[in-house]
Order: sequence, then structure tokens, then C-alpha cells
Amino acid sequence: MTEFLPGSVWLVGAGPGDPDLLTRRAERLIGEASVIFHDALVGEGVLALARPGTRLVHVGKRSGRHSKDQKTIDRLIVEAALAGERVVRLKGGDPSIFGRATEELEACRAAGVPVRICPGITAASAAAAGIGASLTLRGLARKLTFVTAHARAGEELSLDWDRLADPEATLAVYMGKAAAPAVSANLIEAGLPGDTPCALVENASLPGERHFHTRLDLLPLAARTALGDGPALILIGQAVAGGSNAQEHESAAADASELAFRR
Amino acid sequence: MTEFLPGSVWLVGAGPGDPDLLTRRAERLIGEASVIFHDALVGEGVLALARPGTRLVHVGKRSGRHSKDQKTIDRLIVEAALAGERVVRLKGGDPSIFGRATEELEACRAAGVPVRICPGITAASAAAAGIGASLTLRGLARKLTFVTAHARAGEELSLDWDRLADPEATLAVYMGKAAAPAVSANLIEAGLPGDTPCALVENASLPGERHFHTRLDLLPLAARTALGDGPALILIGQAVAGGSNAQEHESAAADASELAFRR
Repeated sequence: MTEFLPGSVWLVGAGPGDPDLLTRRAERLIGEASVIFHDALVGEGVLALARPGTRLVHVGKRSGRHSKDQKTIDRLIVEAALAGERVVRLKGGDPSIFGRATEELEACRAAGVPVRICPGITAASAAAAGIGASLTLRGLARKLTFVTAHARAGEELSLDWDRLADPEATLAVYMGKAAAPAVSANLIEAGLPGDTPCALVENASLPGERHFHTRLDLLPLAARTALGDGPALILIGQAVAGGSNAQEHESAAADASELAFRR
Repeated sequence: MTEFLPGSVWLVGAGPGDPDLLTRRAERLIGEASVIFHDALVGEGVLALARPGTRLVHVGKRSGRHSKDQKTIDRLIVEAALAGERVVRLKGGDPSIFGRATEELEACRAAGVPVRICPGITAASAAAAGIGASLTLRGLARKLTFVTAHARAGEELSLDWDRLADPEATLAVYMGKAAAPAVSANLIEAGLPGDTPCALVENASLPGERHFHTRLDLLPLAARTALGDGPALILIGQAVAGGSNAQEHESAAADASELAFRR
């Protein structure tokens, strides 16, 4: 059993959004917290699991809408713990994958505050489940790489495209919708065939989940077609060619399939 | 809500072993299943969540100890679904990451059996939580790659070491203990510095969890020191240099820290 002592911090993975995809530990920690500092991407259904008296503090950062900077978040967490609170820092997905956990872990340790991580379902796992496909494939996709395509405003996306253009890997591009044209052009220029299978998964696990199956050269078109400003993940590689067909999806996904193009 | 209809199959991620790290959906599906086909790596605490009447079928494969081949597993799952059972295929970690889900998805679809995936916490997320570190790091580790080092008996491990030796990435090697000498030698030969931080995490999330912090050139020594035949994951890269210090760990992890060497 893992205890949640007053004066300690848990960095908790909220998963992709559906509260059903929280871990049992995360559910318990959220229920025991006296204060929860949460990101914008944490679903409302997840926050609803907090006790009525728990203080919920939105410290979310979203593309282009920074509400609190990282140092402020670090300070708030540490101060709450030093005041004897049971602190949950709730992050979308898994805190250890593109969650900027290091800054907060170090701030807690520097202040002598006990801090631990409760892992969460990362977006790539949820997206794969959403399209009903494996991210790895014996012989064809023996490697799985996650990158984030989030660049600061005005900065160009700088990734090592030569390494990423790997025909034997599956590539998962987090926060990838805006960067879809650059991802497509750069990977093709680096040698990945234009007909490499891709899937764009928006709002993975949420009621507004949509999937678009396409190919690398047509990816920018799929990204334009994907409406809404929900978080989106791009999956690229032979493994993604599999997956369920449209009839097996439900509700929102079924609507989206009308827009899907597939070769 | 996701329904579990008779005659359907769910591929369910059991996570790293601790039943506390199951998702809430996985817990519910396990509780509703009439038959569960499970791997060797699925923890007993997870299986204990099945209803008393549920049939538990061990179809596990472990390194060197193949009990049922994949085609047999595919057939058993499909037959159970066609007989009207609520079938859970329970896999360690996340079904979409080195879980060989594709064969089972395709077998179900070919037989007209509805099949869906419930994601799980993958071993790399659990290992990162265990050592209290992020797998990505702004500016230093902007990329995260998972590979499996499991080779068939007598076969040499064949991986694209030049691509994997990426100083800006974190590399997670699944099933990596036996391959540690090859991983270390090949990555160094491909240009990764010998002092690149590494962590070996055995039995992530389980009571017998052990961590060894080391550096790439000393990784084979750490792998020999790691006792037991529990599943082990190797994490390689600058992000792994962080993480909690020994005092913060508990019980088994604290024992293991006496063996740890760190530079």
C-alpha cells in the first residue's frame, strides 16, 4: 500500500481524459488529496472524483495560453506541502512522458518535500486503443518513438528528421496537429515513403474522439479536416495500417469515419 | 460507458503488476469476464479481481518457456467468444506496446468477433515512477524510444544501433536484462558516451521492485547484480540521471539501493 501523508506530493497521471482510464491508485490519491493542482488537459470527469472539500487549482498550460509559469507552479506545490497539505499535482497522460515532471520533482526535493509519481495512461496508448491497433508489430515495427511537436510561438519545429524517418518504427507525435504539414514534409524529405500509413487521433478516449486514417503525404489534409481544438496525436508507421474498420466504432468515432480516407 | 457484451473480446492491459496500477476500466472488465486468458507476467493481485466463477486460462509465454503458441491463443480466444463468453485477454503492460495484439485483433476480426483494447500502464511508465524520474526532459531528452531486446533462442539481437545511439533521446529497453552486455557494447560502439546515465528497473511496481542506477559502460555489471528472474527494463539517457535518491525508497527498493552504484 502506498500512503498519502500530509505534507507530501504525488505527481499523478490523469491519463487521456476518460476517468475510466485512471489507475485505481490515481483515483484513490485524487480522493484523498486536500489540494489538487491540475492542467488544462485534465478531464472534468477526473476532477469530479475529488472530495467536495478539496481545493482545485487550475495551473494549466495550453498551446498559446500560458496561465502560470513553471516556477510559479513549483512554488505553489512546495508551499502547499510545507503547509501540511496532501498535494496532488494532476497531469494529463503520464507525468513521466512530456509532463515536465523533472522541474517539480526537483523543486520538491530541494525543499525536503517527499514526492512520488503515480503513472498514467499516455496518449499514444489511448490513441492505439481508440483505433484498435498495436503500436508495435513483430518484424515490421519493432521500435516505438514518442516526440512532441509542440514548439514555442514563433519558433520553428526542430527535430532530428533523419533519425525519425525510420521505416521499422512507429512514430507517435504528441501535440501534433498544428505541426502536421511540417511533420509530413520533413519525414518524406528524410526518406520515409509518402504512402506510409498514418492515423490522426483527436480527443483520444473522450466522447469527442475522432480518428482519421490516412497516409503520410496526405496527413496535412487530415489535420485540416480534424475540427475542434482538442489534443491530437499523430501515429505514423506500418503498424497503424491495421486497426479496426469504421463499422466497429461507435458514436462520435462513427461520424468521423465518414471523413476518413484510407488507401 | 463501454459495455461488455457476451460474445465479445477485450484485450486488456494489466499494467506492470501492481493491481493498484490497473485502470478502473480494466478492473471492471476483469470483474465482468466469464473467461480470462492471461500471460505469465500478469500479477496474481490482478487475477484476484476476477469473479469466483470466472475461468482463468494461463496462456503465458516467458523467455525460453513457451507454453502455447500464438495461433493456439488466437483460436482459444475466438472459440470462447463464438461460444458466447465475455472474453478478457489480459496482457502485461499495455496491449499495444510489445503485446503482440495485432495477431489476436486480426483473428477476432476475421471471425466476426467484436474486439476492443483497454490500454494499460506500460513498463517504462512504471519504471520511471519507480525511480522518480521523467523519461523526457526539455532540451535534453525530447524523444523517447521503446525497443524490445527479446531475441529468440539462438538468434542474435539485431537492432539499428546507429539510430538508437541518440544523445537527445531516452531509450527504454524492454526485456533487457539478458541483453544488457550487447546493448551497452553496441550503443557505445555507435557513439553514445560510456558515462550516459542508465537505470535498470526490475519488477517495476511489484513488492520485489529493485532499481540500479549506473552508466552505460557499467550496465552489464548492474544486470549481473540484479538477482531474480523478474522482468527488467533498462532506461538509458540524460533524463535518467535525475530521479529520487535512495533514502526516498521503501522496503525492497531500499535494500537494492545498497547495491547501486552511481556516478
